[in-house]
Amino acid sequence: MTDRFQQLLASIKPVDMRLTSTVQSHLDDLTKPQGSLGRLEQIVMNYALATGTADPVLEKKKIFCFAADHGVAAEGVSAFPAAVTPQMVLNMVAGGAAINVLSRHAGADLAVVDMGVDYDFDPASGVIDRKVRKGSSNMATGPAMTVDEAIGAIMAGAELALAARREGCHLLGTGEMGIANTTPATALYAALLGLPVEQITGRGTGIDDAVLARKVSVIRKVMEVNANRLATPLEVLAALGGFEIAGICGLILGAASVGMPVVVDGFISSAAAVVAMKLSCKVPDYLFFSHLSNEQGHRAVMQKLGARPILDLDLRLGEGTGAALAMQVIEASVKVYREMATFSSAKVAGKND
Amino acid sequence: MTDRFQQLLASIKPVDMRLTSTVQSHLDDLTKPQGSLGRLEQIVMNYALATGTADPVLEKKKIFCFAADHGVAAEGVSAFPAAVTPQMVLNMVAGGAAINVLSRHAGADLAVVDMGVDYDFDPASGVIDRKVRKGSSNMATGPAMTVDEAIGAIMAGAELALAARREGCHLLGTGEMGIANTTPATALYAALLGLPVEQITGRGTGIDDAVLARKVSVIRKVMEVNANRLATPLEVLAALGGFEIAGICGLILGAASVGMPVVVDGFISSAAAVVAMKLSCKVPDYLFFSHLSNEQGHRAVMQKLGARPILDLDLRLGEGTGAALAMQVIEASVKVYREMATFSSAKVAGKND
Repeated sequence: MTDRFQQLLASIKPVDMRLTSTVQSHLDDLTKPQGSLGRLEQIVMNYALATGTADPVLEKKKIFCFAADHGVAAEGVSAFPAAVTPQMVLNMVAGGAAINVLSRHAGADLAVVDMGVDYDFDPASGVIDRKVRKGSSNMATGPAMTVDEAIGAIMAGAELALAARREGCHLLGTGEMGIANTTPATALYAALLGLPVEQITGRGTGIDDAVLARKVSVIRKVMEVNANRLATPLEVLAALGGFEIAGICGLILGAASVGMPVVVDGFISSAAAVVAMKLSCKVPDYLFFSHLSNEQGHRAVMQKLGARPILDLDLRLGEGTGAALAMQVIEASVKVYREMATFSSAKVAGKND
Repeated sequence: MTDRFQQLLASIKPVDMRLTSTVQSHLDDLTKPQGSLGRLEQIVMNYALATGTADPVLEKKKIFCFAADHGVAAEGVSAFPAAVTPQMVLNMVAGGAAINVLSRHAGADLAVVDMGVDYDFDPASGVIDRKVRKGSSNMATGPAMTVDEAIGAIMAGAELALAARREGCHLLGTGEMGIANTTPATALYAALLGLPVEQITGRGTGIDDAVLARKVSVIRKVMEVNANRLATPLEVLAALGGFEIAGICGLILGAASVGMPVVVDGFISSAAAVVAMKLSCKVPDYLFFSHLSNEQGHRAVMQKLGARPILDLDLRLGEGTGAALAMQVIEASVKVYREMATFSSAKVAGKND
């Protein structure tokens, strides 16, 4: 398993920057003032580089929503009971969650993956079974998972990306469901980006001031208890992560290894992206950050990464909802590039000299 | 004509705020933490109020791209020659412009309306003929149009909105094409919102520093020459506007009069929206500002209006491109409201007490 993990990391290649001038020439020949489509032009440039072609295609899209439970929920850090994780997973396979509506709106397939939910799903339910175990351990008393478990969850995510590529997917999106998972995400940011816990700890699904204060002290304790397990990004993920976060991290690594871009959802997914970026410095070229989450701390994280998310809609739901919405903007960018007329073909005069 | 114009203004009714609690109750019963869909929830609330129902429908969408030429182009305020206006109109009816790609992506119909282009289009071209005359007069030497012409252009836009409603449209978008039209738009903002000309004058399609300096002095001259024609919003529109701007203003008024929301594109369309808002104080309830334009001055205008546009993608193209992209977010909002499961129907537990 460790060998395959190292091979996965080694297989992620830098993008070929020589494509830049070809893509830019075509953008500048389209019937619009140069640069007037702003970020749409930057997006299709990034998409072309990630996919390694000046003739990029975006047809088949798929969003993976990874679910898991968290031992740290026992510390009382969430506004909702842990039972909501499997209930929402069932809501998703029944089609009733926000991500069902928004992935359908975006024309994206949706896969719901059990990475570690504390529930036995019916094999016929439609939930994809990649369960590591029934919830991570309580990271306030020890590591959330072993390093082997973390690698296993990463490889499960990576293999889903490779399978999606074999199905013909061009663009993947991330999402998650896991009661209490803003706690591991916050701990990961603190450990990997050095951001202060009190600055980036937020209200998640809607906790009050008292629970927020408890959450800050739980995350501080989590960092202390695991202080000697934070030497590498992989150890950090094992100690402070969650199975769904490891799955997203793996999906990103797997997609990057085959030149398939990934749209990163919000606060939790970005934490998985940060782990992936720390595991391989080539990963950022394959990522689109979909939206600026309303969850406290996400702005500081995006600033630290130098990232400007595509949307800013005050979302704080997760599931992949922001990724689904941003996919439509990315698709718009690729369509503009592929479908607009050029100045010569449309007989439109250029700029005055 | 003046009677019908006054009737149009009088027919715009305030929205029924009593719907708010019904809509909010349904939003809070959907399987997500309360408020976690952020601006999507605000958008569907506004959409429901504008359409006057707690069971809002959004299926048929249409974008109107109004085109006209501007006498003030003779002052050398644009980077492109005026001949580009008809060339781009022909590009649009041929399907090659950015707005063709983006309206198709949004699933919206597109209508291209000649309000005053200096060109004789073939009646079979597909351009809708509402030409007032072949371009406005040079507002640096007198009013752009007469008040009667302004009313005629407004009524033409309003009638297009009413016809769209009869076709079954639920949501309209605005767009425009007219070389030099950032100049009238800037003059309108200066006159109607009291914003300083030098703060809000930008580079349009891409003018250099020398042309920008000339543009500022032309707009100052325009304001001076027309100083005694700025007593009412209608007179301001006639003196400082353009035929496509008046058409957009009319489209907004017509749509508002039948409770049909309108998605306002960027810098030029927002100027038409400001005129409409000054003509009737009920208009804002029917508007969505689609995006923050990269054109200098739009941010100051949005701040002055207390508006937060849906998208921020550094677009500065016009045509309706931002409106098309924002329509997808509005549609996502309505779908979430209509299609998500409720806590009771999905058997999902609520928040801890």
